[in-house]
Amino acid sequence: MTKGRIFSGMQPSGKFHLGNYMGALENWVKLQHEYECFFSIVDWHALTSSYEDTSKIPERIHEMALDWLSAGLDPEKNVIFVQSHVKEHAELHLLLSMMTPLSWLERVPTYKDKLQQLGIQGKDINTYGFLGYPELMTADIILYKADTIPVGEDQLPHLELSREIVRRFNNLYQPIFPEPKPSLSKSAILPGIDGRKMSKSYGNEIPFAASPDELRARIRLMITDPNRVKRTDLGNPDVCTVYTFHKIFNAEQSTEIAQSCRQATIGCVDCKKCLAEKMVNSLADIHVRRQELEKNPGRVKEILVFGGERARIVAAKTMDEVRQAMNLA
Amino acid sequence: MTKGRIFSGMQPSGKFHLGNYMGALENWVKLQHEYECFFSIVDWHALTSSYEDTSKIPERIHEMALDWLSAGLDPEKNVIFVQSHVKEHAELHLLLSMMTPLSWLERVPTYKDKLQQLGIQGKDINTYGFLGYPELMTADIILYKADTIPVGEDQLPHLELSREIVRRFNNLYQPIFPEPKPSLSKSAILPGIDGRKMSKSYGNEIPFAASPDELRARIRLMITDPNRVKRTDLGNPDVCTVYTFHKIFNAEQSTEIAQSCRQATIGCVDCKKCLAEKMVNSLADIHVRRQELEKNPGRVKEILVFGGERARIVAAKTMDEVRQAMNLA
Ligand code: SF4
Ligand code: SF4
Repeated sequence: MTKGRIFSGMQPSGKFHLGNYMGALENWVKLQHEYECFFSIVDWHALTSSYEDTSKIPERIHEMALDWLSAGLDPEKNVIFVQSHVKEHAELHLLLSMMTPLSWLERVPTYKDKLQQLGIQGKDINTYGFLGYPELMTADIILYKADTIPVGEDQLPHLELSREIVRRFNNLYQPIFPEPKPSLSKSAILPGIDGRKMSKSYGNEIPFAASPDELRARIRLMITDPNRVKRTDLGNPDVCTVYTFHKIFNAEQSTEIAQSCRQATIGCVDCKKCLAEKMVNSLADIHVRRQELEKNPGRVKEILVFGGERARIVAAKTMDEVRQAMNLA
Repeated sequence: MTKGRIFSGMQPSGKFHLGNYMGALENWVKLQHEYECFFSIVDWHALTSSYEDTSKIPERIHEMALDWLSAGLDPEKNVIFVQSHVKEHAELHLLLSMMTPLSWLERVPTYKDKLQQLGIQGKDINTYGFLGYPELMTADIILYKADTIPVGEDQLPHLELSREIVRRFNNLYQPIFPEPKPSLSKSAILPGIDGRKMSKSYGNEIPFAASPDELRARIRLMITDPNRVKRTDLGNPDVCTVYTFHKIFNAEQSTEIAQSCRQATIGCVDCKKCLAEKMVNSLADIHVRRQELEKNPGRVKEILVFGGERARIVAAKTMDEVRQAMNLA
């Protein structure tokens, strides 16, 4: 018996880094053992912000599938698929659009925020499709009758809208959809190696599925307590990025390390080495899986085809019910 | 060689009357000889205004197909189909939504007008889907690469928007769509038997595909010149509904009739009889075809299935090109 059914998706918006992994994917890897999971690479969603240049979409989809599988998502256990392979998402999105008040979409708090934010980056995304983003997300979720949605706090308003749309559908037609409930995931936020938010644009990221040597090299460049110049200076772990990482990847030793740092009984070089070996160990499987998969790109493709077929079976069944409920052919 | 390819659709929004026929369908019957035509019963569009009660949609689709075939649309020559049978309409609509500025849809002049008009009727149609109406219409048209669209003046802004969307698509991706051009159809406007706009809500309509006896009965009830009370009163054909009908169904005799009316050399009873026989004759085929089809409802269904299959072949081919142009799978 699983606890329920999960749907979750990610936009194929470029290369993953370790911060992205800790933010969501690590949680999925855990959830797969407790829930029946549908994980989707939502390429149609990616068009809301990148319709002007779609040239990288195919390679980004492949990269994302590689990342997911490397992270340890099991393609037999979970349904792993590309959104655009399942046309029913578009059909359900259209049907839901007919019964969703415009004002519900306009008042989603993230809508105007994101418009502004991307506007600053010079992206003109004030499109009909961008306004309909939460509508498509709702279709994604309910097409599989998912009842549990892993979300961060910021996505709660989207999910609340999905629940409203579900209630409206169930009232107007037939009660065929469960109201999806949020499963709040509080994941550790991994800073970049300079202590700021990890982001490729800052050049401070740790690549996902890095090799042991890549990991060690990135950790060597990490910013430590800037006031600890000499080995004999007493350190302050609370302002040290290395220490933030220890707390996440080396929790059991972190109190000891903090003490040694404050008393200067450990040097930063050794402290980093210790962290590096911990991270190399805990991320070893990911790197190995990734290397295996990279040798066989056909396998990734096969997995997505297989996942698409499994997703379509469920989606087609739901759409039969939807059409019947709405008196459509 | 045909002049080009036409797409046109009608919402299955209830029983047809003769005024509807003269307004659009009669024109289609002519166009089928000059163009390659795709005629669609656009049931998804009907949801924009009737999502709250969809119970009558199946019978309305059947009725509409009956009307079209009775009118003389040839199901071998034309592709006659139901929109929702071709899921590609939903997919293309979604893809177009990603690149269509919201403002383009908001500024369509009919948008706010129709919102207000239906709001007065107590219909709450301010939905996301209603705003996207011209987007779906654009998908309908270009899915078949139609280059010619029969429209009334009021629909010109919709078509201009479709042309803009096509240009944007062709510029952003690849030039795969022709810009659809309007073919303005100026059809005679048939009043109701009381001289007002023909409408079921006024009870003044002439049913479509009426039998000869039904036609005669409706014409007997037509309002004539109200000042011509006695047979010997001189009449004024310009204020007479019967005369309006003569001009449309009996054009060659209309000058003569007008004269006889003014001179009171014809009585209203005979004048109506004359009109009735003209109308019975010119609409005879429609009634006969309808009777034949009503004997065989399975045939109508078959025709729609066949049309859907033909439409899907063209639609699938277009979508292959669209996905390739947009780098989607
Ligand atoms: S000893 Fe470790 S925690 Fe302390 S400043 Fe150096 S790297 Fe940071
Ligand atoms: S004679 Fe004919 S045109 Fe003249 S008023 Fe009578 S019905 Fe109308």
